[in-house]
Amino acid sequence: MITLASDFGSPYPAAMRGVLCSRTDARLVDVTHDFPRQDVRTAAFWLRELLPTFPAAVHLAVVDPGVGTDRRPIAVSAGEHALVGPDNGLLLPAARALADGGDVSCYEIPVDDPESTTFHGRDVFAPAAAAVHDGGIDGLDYPAVRDPVDLTFPKPTVRGDEARGDVLVVDGFGNAITNIPGDILHGHWGAYARIDGERVPVARTYDAVGADERLLTVGSHGNVELAVNRGRGDEAFGVEPGGTIRLALP
Amino acid sequence: MITLASDFGSPYPAAMRGVLCSRTDARLVDVTHDFPRQDVRTAAFWLRELLPTFPAAVHLAVVDPGVGTDRRPIAVSAGEHALVGPDNGLLLPAARALADGGDVSCYEIPVDDPESTTFHGRDVFAPAAAAVHDGGIDGLDYPAVRDPVDLTFPKPTVRGDEARGDVLVVDGFGNAITNIPGDILHGHWGAYARIDGERVPVARTYDAVGADERLLTVGSHGNVELAVNRGRGDEAFGVEPGGTIRLALP
Amino acid sequence: MITLASDFGSPYPAAMRGVLCSRTDARLVDVTHDFPRQDVRTAAFWLRELLPTFPAAVHLAVVDPGVGTDRRPIAVSAGEHALVGPDNGLLLPAARALADGGDVSCYEIPVDDPESTTFHGRDVFAPAAAAVHDGGIDGLDYPAVRDPVDLTFPKPTVRGDEARGDVLVVDGFGNAITNIPGDILHGHWGAYARIDGERVPVARTYDAVGADERLLTVGSHGNVELAVNRGRGDEAFGVEPGGTIRLALP
Repeated sequence: MITLASDFGSPYPAAMRGVLCSRTDARLVDVTHDFPRQDVRTAAFWLRELLPTFPAAVHLAVVDPGVGTDRRPIAVSAGEHALVGPDNGLLLPAARALADGGDVSCYEIPVDDPESTTFHGRDVFAPAAAAVHDGGIDGLDYPAVRDPVDLTFPKPTVRGDEARGDVLVVDGFGNAITNIPGDILHGHWGAYARIDGERVPVARTYDAVGADERLLTVGSHGNVELAVNRGRGDEAFGVEPGGTIRLALP
Repeated sequence: MITLASDFGSPYPAAMRGVLCSRTDARLVDVTHDFPRQDVRTAAFWLRELLPTFPAAVHLAVVDPGVGTDRRPIAVSAGEHALVGPDNGLLLPAARALADGGDVSCYEIPVDDPESTTFHGRDVFAPAAAAVHDGGIDGLDYPAVRDPVDLTFPKPTVRGDEARGDVLVVDGFGNAITNIPGDILHGHWGAYARIDGERVPVARTYDAVGADERLLTVGSHGNVELAVNRGRGDEAFGVEPGGTIRLALP
Repeated sequence: MITLASDFGSPYPAAMRGVLCSRTDARLVDVTHDFPRQDVRTAAFWLRELLPTFPAAVHLAVVDPGVGTDRRPIAVSAGEHALVGPDNGLLLPAARALADGGDVSCYEIPVDDPESTTFHGRDVFAPAAAAVHDGGIDGLDYPAVRDPVDLTFPKPTVRGDEARGDVLVVDGFGNAITNIPGDILHGHWGAYARIDGERVPVARTYDAVGADERLLTVGSHGNVELAVNRGRGDEAFGVEPGGTIRLALP
């Protein structure tokens, strides 16, 4: 199986699908092609959350503002999975999650003329994903990359019932996903917390508060989420990715 | 085959695909993940229109503003088809269409800790859809649900050449789809009708009137549709879902 | 394999998928369903660019502002490929690219009652694509169409280091794709060109200029592209499809 993810929107993903179908009989499954444009951090977050739901697969992922520069195309070995994409940090968080404590190894995909194209998704990454799928990374004799570009997410500071954390991403519903582990809210369902000093109800579910009301909850990723029932949490809380928040429980 | 439908947009559908691929070899086919957010009625309308085009399948559908509340997750048996999703009315109109006059039976999907998650699509419905696909509803011994939440669409009043009906949904082209059966227009092609008193041409095809002109036609669902050639009918007629219209033919 | 392309957005493509799944075991691969609405020229451009990446397949493509008029539904034979869709020019540029110099033959798909439906994608084209896939065009005995509606793209005028060309389409990133062959830029990387008299850097890659800066580059299609690094070229250059540009190199 090969999964596909990108920020290409429409119609460029079709060129990757066409190249893959021309080169391999692998099953193709789309992750998404609507990652926010050229936002490597947000895509890296989602790949880390989503790819571990899949069985062993090759994951082709392209969010690549540096296409055509000297950033390297890489293939990554991570447990029973492999990833193919640009060496800009996009793949590493997901690779660590897929390896589940095991080794993560990076290899450089050879490119005949790295400046020949502005569409590495079609011309470099899709052919490499087909080759990795059919031959395995080990069989390809790609040179090792010992210094891949890494990308990490900030760690929150949690002290008892207080935490200082960061908004990592905002999802399409407007939920602001933080890096604060959700277990800080356990035992506080139905009570109030303070976010940057303001009282906000703590609720297990969006519908536990009225429509358009703010709440703190634990999202599907296991972290604290700033949300609005049937509305947008990012707007109601005035937060965006990269912003810092202070959370205090009574 | 398992079909997938939701209002998740991007990227959450990938988590359902990943869980399904991890649990079953079933072919996956997307219906859409762009249903209007948390709009159960509109999604129920489209599922009723679209799912009967498919051969026997398990249909996983999630539009679920009540996720995490005590609304039940259900599996529905409908002829050679089965449906899996929330017990909020979403599945019933499609189930009746798929059963085609036969029995529709509902069963409750057991959930270990119903409040453990805000993402039942990934954690409850996708595993259940895989289980229903591979084992069949009868093999799963789910408890029967005798009082599922139902959802019905209003009936129009038709008296000869006059009708009073409702706008059920507006599609992505802006066509306002009513509940008035299209056969009322037969024999009137090229003539004029009155919609809420205003004269509007009756046409078999959008292109039968000039660009940006209003028309009444019969949509792919067989009902009267308020449309604009190469434009948006909802805006030109000033209607929205739930609105009432009066139609009179000469 | 059957590929699907349309301007249907959501949720109408599901009806074509359902009909195809009901009639054939062919693998289905989406090209896109987000072509600009009723814009036959833009869709024809993308089909010409994208379909040749696929192996032998039946390509079902529907952008069809004239649905229900007397425009014919056609099937097109092009090398090892076939195409199915409306006779409005949409398919011909792609067919010529797929035939790669070989014959392109068009056939009329019989329709019992051409005015019976506003949804030929579901009721005419999808059944025909399944029939062409399983039986081959030759086996179907469709009548030949000798005068299909054609669609061609304008040719640029290139004289040495000067060119006069046209913007063919704008992609989702805002890159304005012209018909001027990219080789005119070779040997000028890092230098400046004039576009309608204004100086613009010529760069192999978007990131070779600063964020939000304009550049001329060669896109994935091999033509000159007016772009902005991490921004929209169409807005920065004030161009749109159909517009003319003058390009001069020093």
